[in-house]
Amino acid sequence: MTTTQHTVRNGVDTTALFATLDAVKANPELAQFRFRASNTWVSGTHNKSSIDGFYGTGQDLAHEQAWTLDADHPAVLVGQDHGPTPVEYLLHALAACLTSGLANVAAARGVNLDEVTSTVEGDINLLGIFGLSDEVRNGFEHIKVSFRMSGDDPDKLRKVVEQSRERSAVFDMLTNGVPVTVKVTPG
Amino acid sequence: MTTTQHTVRNGVDTTALFATLDAVKANPELAQFRFRASNTWVSGTHNKSSIDGFYGTGQDLAHEQAWTLDADHPAVLVGQDHGPTPVEYLLHALAACLTSGLANVAAARGVNLDEVTSTVEGDINLLGIFGLSDEVRNGFEHIKVSFRMSGDDPDKLRKVVEQSRERSAVFDMLTNGVPVTVKVTPG
Repeated sequence: MTTTQHTVRNGVDTTALFATLDAVKANPELAQFRFRASNTWVSGTHNKSSIDGFYGTGQDLAHEQAWTLDADHPAVLVGQDHGPTPVEYLLHALAACLTSGLANVAAARGVNLDEVTSTVEGDINLLGIFGLSDEVRNGFEHIKVSFRMSGDDPDKLRKVVEQSRERSAVFDMLTNGVPVTVKVTPG
Repeated sequence: MTTTQHTVRNGVDTTALFATLDAVKANPELAQFRFRASNTWVSGTHNKSSIDGFYGTGQDLAHEQAWTLDADHPAVLVGQDHGPTPVEYLLHALAACLTSGLANVAAARGVNLDEVTSTVEGDINLLGIFGLSDEVRNGFEHIKVSFRMSGDDPDKLRKVVEQSRERSAVFDMLTNGVPVTVKVTPG
Protein backbone atom coordinates (compact mmCIF):
# COMPACT_ATOMS: atom_id res chain seq x y z
CA MET A 1 0.00 0.00 0.00
CA THR A 2 1.30 3.42 -0.95
CA THR A 3 0.33 6.51 0.98
CA THR A 4 0.87 9.95 -0.49
CA GLN A 5 1.47 12.91 1.77
CA HIS A 6 -0.56 15.83 0.44
CA THR A 7 0.79 19.36 0.53
CA VAL A 8 -1.85 22.00 1.17
CA ARG A 9 -1.13 25.71 0.79
CA ASN A 10 -3.71 28.51 0.90
CA GLY A 11 -6.33 25.76 1.21
CA VAL A 12 -5.23 24.32 -2.14
CA ASP A 13 -4.19 20.66 -2.23
CA THR A 14 -1.18 21.17 -4.50
CA THR A 15 -0.44 17.44 -4.59
CA ALA A 16 -3.90 16.82 -6.08
CA LEU A 17 -3.52 19.89 -8.34
CA PHE A 18 -0.27 18.65 -9.88
CA ALA A 19 -1.67 15.09 -10.13
CA THR A 20 -4.68 16.50 -12.03
CA LEU A 21 -2.40 18.39 -14.42
CA ASP A 22 -0.38 15.20 -15.01
CA ALA A 23 -3.57 13.19 -15.65
CA VAL A 24 -4.75 15.75 -18.21
CA LYS A 25 -1.33 15.87 -19.86
CA ALA A 26 -1.52 12.08 -20.28
CA ASN A 27 -5.15 12.19 -21.53
CA PRO A 28 -5.87 15.61 -23.03
CA GLU A 29 -9.48 14.64 -23.89
CA LEU A 30 -10.24 14.76 -20.13
CA ALA A 31 -9.93 18.57 -20.41
CA GLN A 32 -13.12 19.04 -22.47
CA PHE A 33 -15.84 20.45 -20.17
CA ARG A 34 -19.36 21.75 -20.76
CA PHE A 35 -20.97 23.99 -18.12
CA ARG A 36 -24.66 24.80 -18.00
CA ALA A 37 -27.29 27.06 -16.41
CA SER A 38 -31.05 26.47 -16.74
CA ASN A 39 -33.13 29.61 -16.40
CA THR A 40 -36.86 30.04 -15.75
CA TRP A 41 -38.74 33.31 -16.12
CA VAL A 42 -40.80 34.14 -13.00
CA SER A 43 -42.50 37.51 -13.62
CA GLY A 44 -41.42 40.86 -14.98
CA THR A 45 -37.63 41.11 -14.89
CA HIS A 46 -37.39 38.40 -12.20
CA ASN A 47 -36.01 35.04 -13.28
CA LYS A 48 -33.94 32.27 -11.70
CA SER A 49 -31.27 29.86 -12.84
CA SER A 50 -30.57 26.40 -11.60
CA ILE A 51 -26.95 25.22 -11.56
CA ASP A 52 -26.57 21.53 -10.90
CA GLY A 53 -24.67 19.41 -13.39
CA PHE A 54 -21.88 19.69 -15.91
CA TYR A 55 -19.83 17.50 -18.22
CA GLY A 56 -16.12 16.91 -17.75
CA THR A 57 -13.39 14.24 -17.64
CA GLY A 58 -15.47 12.25 -20.14
CA GLN A 59 -18.61 11.98 -18.03
CA ASP A 60 -21.69 13.79 -16.72
CA LEU A 61 -20.96 15.14 -13.26
CA ALA A 62 -23.14 16.68 -10.55
CA HIS A 63 -22.29 19.44 -8.12
CA GLU A 64 -22.58 18.39 -4.47
CA GLN A 65 -25.81 20.38 -4.37
CA ALA A 66 -27.98 22.29 -6.82
CA TRP A 67 -27.97 26.07 -6.55
CA THR A 68 -30.72 28.50 -7.48
CA LEU A 69 -29.73 32.02 -8.45
CA ASP A 70 -32.37 34.75 -8.55
CA ALA A 71 -31.88 37.73 -10.85
CA ASP A 72 -33.97 40.87 -11.17
CA HIS A 73 -33.74 44.58 -11.89
CA PRO A 74 -33.90 47.08 -9.01
CA ALA A 75 -36.96 49.26 -8.38
CA VAL A 76 -35.32 52.29 -9.99
CA LEU A 77 -35.22 50.24 -13.20
CA VAL A 78 -38.85 49.11 -12.82
CA GLY A 79 -37.96 45.69 -11.37
CA GLN A 80 -38.86 44.09 -8.05
CA ASP A 81 -35.27 43.71 -6.75
CA HIS A 82 -35.67 39.99 -6.03
CA GLY A 83 -31.98 39.37 -6.75
CA PRO A 84 -28.79 40.90 -8.10
CA THR A 85 -28.91 42.28 -11.62
CA PRO A 86 -27.44 40.23 -14.47
CA VAL A 87 -24.51 42.63 -14.82
CA GLU A 88 -23.68 42.31 -11.10
CA TYR A 89 -23.52 38.52 -11.59
CA LEU A 90 -21.08 39.15 -14.41
CA LEU A 91 -18.87 41.32 -12.13
CA HIS A 92 -18.99 38.57 -9.50
CA ALA A 93 -18.03 35.97 -12.12
CA LEU A 94 -14.95 38.02 -12.99
CA ALA A 95 -13.92 38.59 -9.35
CA ALA A 96 -14.46 34.91 -8.55
CA CYS A 97 -12.53 33.62 -11.56
CA LEU A 98 -9.51 35.83 -10.87
CA THR A 99 -9.58 34.99 -7.15
CA SER A 100 -9.95 31.20 -7.55
CA GLY A 101 -7.20 31.33 -10.14
CA LEU A 102 -4.78 33.35 -8.04
CA ALA A 103 -5.24 31.01 -5.08
CA ASN A 104 -4.25 28.07 -7.31
CA VAL A 105 -1.33 29.95 -8.87
CA ALA A 106 -0.04 31.11 -5.48
CA ALA A 107 -0.24 27.59 -4.07
CA ALA A 108 1.53 26.11 -7.09
CA ARG A 109 4.32 28.68 -6.78
CA GLY A 110 4.69 28.32 -3.02
CA VAL A 111 3.39 31.84 -2.36
CA ASN A 112 1.41 32.28 0.85
CA LEU A 113 -1.77 34.34 0.92
CA ASP A 114 -3.16 35.93 4.03
CA GLU A 115 -6.09 38.11 2.92
CA VAL A 116 -7.40 38.80 -0.57
CA THR A 117 -10.31 41.13 -1.25
CA SER A 118 -11.37 42.82 -4.44
CA THR A 119 -13.90 45.29 -5.69
CA VAL A 120 -15.10 45.05 -9.27
CA GLU A 121 -16.94 48.02 -10.75
CA GLY A 122 -18.54 48.49 -14.13
CA ASP A 123 -19.75 51.77 -15.62
CA ILE A 124 -22.77 51.59 -17.88
CA ASN A 125 -24.71 54.29 -19.66
CA LEU A 126 -28.27 53.01 -19.93
CA LEU A 127 -28.98 55.18 -22.98
CA GLY A 128 -27.64 52.16 -24.87
CA ILE A 129 -29.99 49.46 -23.61
CA PHE A 130 -32.89 51.92 -23.50
CA GLY A 131 -32.37 52.45 -27.24
CA LEU A 132 -32.03 56.22 -26.69
CA SER A 133 -28.60 56.60 -28.30
CA ASP A 134 -26.89 54.83 -31.18
CA GLU A 135 -23.48 55.95 -29.94
CA VAL A 136 -23.68 54.30 -26.53
CA ARG A 137 -22.98 50.57 -26.24
CA ASN A 138 -25.30 48.25 -24.29
CA GLY A 139 -22.71 46.89 -21.90
CA PHE A 140 -20.21 48.35 -19.46
CA GLU A 141 -17.92 50.98 -20.96
CA HIS A 142 -15.14 49.55 -18.82
CA ILE A 143 -14.64 47.29 -15.82
CA LYS A 144 -12.22 48.09 -13.03
CA VAL A 145 -10.90 45.35 -10.73
CA SER A 146 -9.08 46.47 -7.55
CA PHE A 147 -7.37 43.82 -5.45
CA ARG A 148 -6.09 44.34 -1.92
CA MET A 149 -3.81 41.54 -0.80
CA SER A 150 -1.56 40.52 2.04
CA GLY A 151 0.70 37.50 2.49
CA ASP A 152 4.15 37.04 0.97
CA ASP A 153 5.99 40.02 -0.50
CA PRO A 154 3.90 42.43 -2.62
CA ASP A 155 5.84 41.78 -5.81
CA LYS A 156 5.13 38.03 -5.62
CA LEU A 157 1.46 38.75 -4.95
CA ARG A 158 1.26 41.08 -7.94
CA LYS A 159 2.80 38.42 -10.19
CA VAL A 160 0.33 35.84 -8.93
CA VAL A 161 -2.57 38.12 -9.95
CA GLU A 162 -0.90 38.75 -13.30
CA GLN A 163 -0.64 35.01 -13.98
CA SER A 164 -4.24 34.44 -12.87
CA ARG A 165 -5.38 37.11 -15.32
CA GLU A 166 -3.35 35.42 -18.07
CA ARG A 167 -5.22 32.16 -17.41
CA SER A 168 -8.68 33.35 -16.42
CA ALA A 169 -11.62 31.97 -18.40
CA VAL A 170 -13.92 34.89 -17.53
CA PHE A 171 -11.26 37.57 -18.13
CA ASP A 172 -10.55 36.02 -21.54
CA MET A 173 -14.22 35.99 -22.55
CA LEU A 174 -14.90 39.53 -21.34
CA THR A 175 -11.87 41.07 -22.98
CA ASN A 176 -11.73 39.00 -26.17
CA GLY A 177 -15.37 38.11 -26.71
CA VAL A 178 -16.91 34.71 -27.37
CA PRO A 179 -19.31 33.48 -30.07
CA VAL A 180 -22.87 33.22 -28.71
CA THR A 181 -25.75 31.62 -30.59
CA VAL A 182 -29.39 32.11 -29.53
CA LYS A 183 -32.13 29.68 -30.56
CA VAL A 184 -35.87 29.97 -29.85
CA THR A 185 -38.25 26.99 -29.83
CA PRO A 186 -42.00 27.35 -29.27
CA GLY A 187 -43.37 25.11 -26.55
CA MET B 1 -55.04 64.90 -6.98
CA THR B 2 -54.15 62.94 -10.08
CA THR B 3 -54.22 59.18 -10.10
CA THR B 4 -52.54 57.24 -12.86
CA GLN B 5 -53.86 53.87 -13.86
CA HIS B 6 -50.91 51.55 -14.33
CA THR B 7 -50.84 48.93 -17.07
CA VAL B 8 -49.06 45.73 -16.08
CA ARG B 9 -48.23 43.02 -18.61
CA ASN B 10 -46.06 39.96 -17.96
CA GLY B 11 -45.51 41.40 -14.48
CA VAL B 12 -43.95 44.53 -16.02
CA ASP B 13 -45.45 47.90 -15.07
CA THR B 14 -45.35 49.37 -18.56
CA THR B 15 -46.69 52.72 -17.35
CA ALA B 16 -43.67 53.04 -15.04
CA LEU B 17 -41.39 51.69 -17.77
CA PHE B 18 -42.43 54.34 -20.29
CA ALA B 19 -42.34 57.06 -17.59
CA THR B 20 -38.77 56.01 -16.78
CA LEU B 21 -37.79 56.20 -20.44
CA ASP B 22 -39.36 59.69 -20.68
CA ALA B 23 -37.52 60.84 -17.53
CA VAL B 24 -34.20 59.63 -18.96
CA LYS B 25 -34.93 61.25 -22.32
CA ALA B 26 -35.46 64.55 -20.51
CA ASN B 27 -32.34 64.13 -18.30
CA PRO B 28 -29.88 61.80 -20.06
CA GLU B 29 -27.36 62.09 -17.19
CA LEU B 30 -29.76 59.93 -15.10
CA ALA B 31 -28.72 57.00 -17.31
CA GLN B 32 -25.16 56.79 -15.96
CA PHE B 33 -24.94 53.78 -13.61
CA ARG B 34 -22.09 52.03 -11.80
CA PHE B 35 -22.57 48.47 -10.56
CA ARG B 36 -20.28 46.76 -8.08
CA ALA B 37 -19.34 43.41 -6.52
CA SER B 38 -17.03 43.08 -3.48
CA ASN B 39 -15.25 39.76 -3.27
CA THR B 40 -13.44 38.09 -0.37
CA TRP B 41 -11.19 35.06 -0.69
CA VAL B 42 -12.14 32.31 1.79
CA SER B 43 -9.78 29.37 1.18
CA GLY B 44 -8.48 27.52 -1.86
CA THR B 45 -10.72 28.27 -4.83
CA HIS B 46 -13.63 29.26 -2.56
CA ASN B 47 -14.51 32.96 -2.42
CA LYS B 48 -17.66 35.03 -1.98
CA SER B 49 -19.00 38.29 -3.32
CA SER B 50 -21.28 40.76 -1.65
CA ILE B 51 -23.72 42.67 -3.83
CA ASP B 52 -25.44 45.50 -2.02
CA GLY B 53 -25.23 48.99 -3.50
CA PHE B 54 -24.85 50.73 -6.84
CA TYR B 55 -24.86 54.22 -8.29
CA GLY B 56 -27.58 55.46 -10.64
CA THR B 57 -29.97 58.33 -11.38
CA GLY B 58 -27.36 60.66 -9.87
CA GLN B 59 -27.19 59.04 -6.44
CA ASP B 60 -25.90 56.09 -4.42
CA LEU B 61 -28.62 53.46 -4.19
CA ALA B 62 -29.00 50.27 -2.14
CA HIS B 63 -30.63 47.02 -3.12
CA GLU B 64 -33.52 46.03 -0.85
CA GLN B 65 -31.17 43.47 0.67
CA ALA B 66 -27.52 42.51 0.38
CA TRP B 67 -26.75 39.25 -1.37
CA THR B 68 -23.79 36.95 -0.83
CA LEU B 69 -22.69 34.76 -3.72
CA ASP B 70 -20.33 31.84 -3.08
CA ALA B 71 -18.09 30.61 -5.87
CA ASP B 72 -15.79 27.61 -5.96
CA HIS B 73 -14.39 24.94 -8.23
CA PRO B 74 -15.84 21.40 -8.12
CA ALA B 75 -13.95 18.48 -6.58
CA VAL B 76 -12.88 17.18 -10.00
CA LEU B 77 -11.02 20.48 -10.42
CA VAL B 78 -9.48 20.28 -6.95
CA GLY B 79 -12.03 22.65 -5.35
CA GLN B 80 -14.45 22.12 -2.46
CA ASP B 81 -17.65 22.74 -4.49
CA HIS B 82 -18.95 25.38 -2.05
CA GLY B 83 -20.73 27.23 -4.87
CA PRO B 84 -21.17 27.45 -8.63
CA THR B 85 -18.04 27.98 -10.69
CA PRO B 86 -17.27 31.47 -12.01
CA VAL B 87 -18.10 30.41 -15.58
CA GLU B 88 -21.51 29.09 -14.49
CA TYR B 89 -22.24 32.51 -12.95
CA LEU B 90 -21.34 34.01 -16.32
CA LEU B 91 -23.82 31.68 -18.10
CA HIS B 92 -26.48 32.65 -15.56
CA ALA B 93 -25.73 36.35 -16.14
CA LEU B 94 -26.34 35.88 -19.85
CA ALA B 95 -29.58 33.90 -19.40
CA ALA B 96 -30.85 36.42 -16.85
CA CYS B 97 -30.02 39.47 -18.96
CA LEU B 98 -31.74 38.08 -22.06
CA THR B 99 -34.76 36.95 -20.04
CA SER B 100 -35.24 40.19 -18.06
CA GLY B 101 -34.86 42.08 -21.31
CA LEU B 102 -37.34 40.03 -23.28
CA ALA B 103 -39.95 40.40 -20.53
CA ASN B 104 -39.59 44.19 -20.79
CA VAL B 105 -39.62 44.16 -24.59
CA ALA B 106 -42.67 41.88 -24.72
CA ALA B 107 -44.57 44.06 -22.25
CA ALA B 108 -43.68 47.25 -24.14
CA ARG B 109 -44.88 45.68 -27.41
CA GLY B 110 -48.08 44.23 -25.93
CA VAL B 111 -46.87 40.66 -26.39
CA ASN B 112 -48.05 38.19 -23.74
CA LEU B 113 -45.70 35.62 -22.29
CA ASP B 114 -46.83 32.40 -20.69
CA GLU B 115 -43.70 30.36 -19.99
CA VAL B 116 -40.07 31.14 -20.79
CA THR B 117 -37.24 28.77 -20.00
CA SER B 118 -33.72 28.64 -21.35
CA THR B 119 -30.62 26.53 -21.15
CA VAL B 120 -27.25 28.17 -21.62
CA GLU B 121 -24.26 25.94 -22.29
CA GLY B 122 -20.61 26.77 -22.70
CA ASP B 123 -17.89 24.46 -24.02
CA ILE B 124 -14.44 24.93 -22.57
CA ASN B 125 -11.22 23.03 -23.15
CA LEU B 126 -9.25 23.29 -19.92
CA LEU B 127 -5.92 22.78 -21.71
CA GLY B 128 -6.07 26.58 -22.06
CA ILE B 129 -6.36 27.59 -18.41
CA PHE B 130 -4.08 24.72 -17.37
CA GLY B 131 -1.39 26.25 -19.58
CA LEU B 132 -1.02 22.94 -21.47
CA SER B 133 -1.70 24.31 -24.95
CA ASP B 134 -0.98 27.62 -26.59
CA GLU B 135 -3.64 27.00 -29.22
CA VAL B 136 -6.57 26.65 -26.82
CA ARG B 137 -8.19 29.80 -25.42
CA ASN B 138 -8.90 30.16 -21.70
CA GLY B 139 -12.64 30.81 -22.00
CA PHE B 140 -15.58 29.06 -23.61
CA GLU B 141 -15.07 28.20 -27.27
CA HIS B 142 -18.74 29.08 -27.81
CA ILE B 143 -21.92 29.62 -25.82
CA LYS B 144 -25.28 28.22 -26.90
CA VAL B 145 -28.52 29.73 -25.59
CA SER B 146 -31.73 27.72 -26.19
CA PHE B 147 -35.06 29.36 -25.33
CA ARG B 148 -38.36 27.53 -25.07
CA MET B 149 -41.30 29.93 -24.97
CA SER B 150 -45.07 29.97 -24.98
CA GLY B 151 -47.53 32.87 -25.05
CA ASP B 152 -48.50 34.88 -28.13
CA ASP B 153 -47.67 33.60 -31.58
CA PRO B 154 -44.19 32.10 -32.07
CA ASP B 155 -43.07 34.72 -34.58
CA LYS B 156 -43.78 37.54 -32.10
CA LEU B 157 -41.94 35.66 -29.37
CA ARG B 158 -38.94 35.12 -31.63
CA LYS B 159 -38.83 38.85 -32.45
CA VAL B 160 -39.01 39.74 -28.77
CA VAL B 161 -35.92 37.56 -28.09
CA GLU B 162 -34.17 39.11 -31.08
CA GLN B 163 -34.80 42.62 -29.73
CA SER B 164 -33.68 41.62 -26.24
CA ARG B 165 -30.44 40.29 -27.72
CA GLU B 166 -29.97 43.58 -29.59
CA ARG B 167 -30.23 45.48 -26.29
CA SER B 168 -28.64 43.09 -23.81
CA ALA B 169 -25.75 44.43 -21.72
CA VAL B 170 -24.31 40.98 -21.03
CA PHE B 171 -24.71 39.73 -24.62
CA ASP B 172 -22.93 42.88 -25.83
CA MET B 173 -20.00 42.43 -23.44
CA LEU B 174 -19.58 38.72 -24.14
CA THR B 175 -19.72 39.03 -27.92
CA ASN B 176 -17.90 42.36 -28.34
CA GLY B 177 -15.59 42.40 -25.34
CA VAL B 178 -15.07 45.13 -22.78
CA PRO B 179 -11.90 46.85 -21.49
CA VAL B 180 -10.92 45.46 -18.07
CA THR B 181 -8.21 46.96 -15.86
CA VAL B 182 -6.76 45.08 -12.88
CA LYS B 183 -5.00 46.88 -10.03
CA VAL B 184 -3.26 45.33 -7.02
CA THR B 185 -2.65 47.16 -3.74
CA PRO B 186 -0.77 45.61 -0.81
CA GLY B 187 -2.65 45.79 2.46
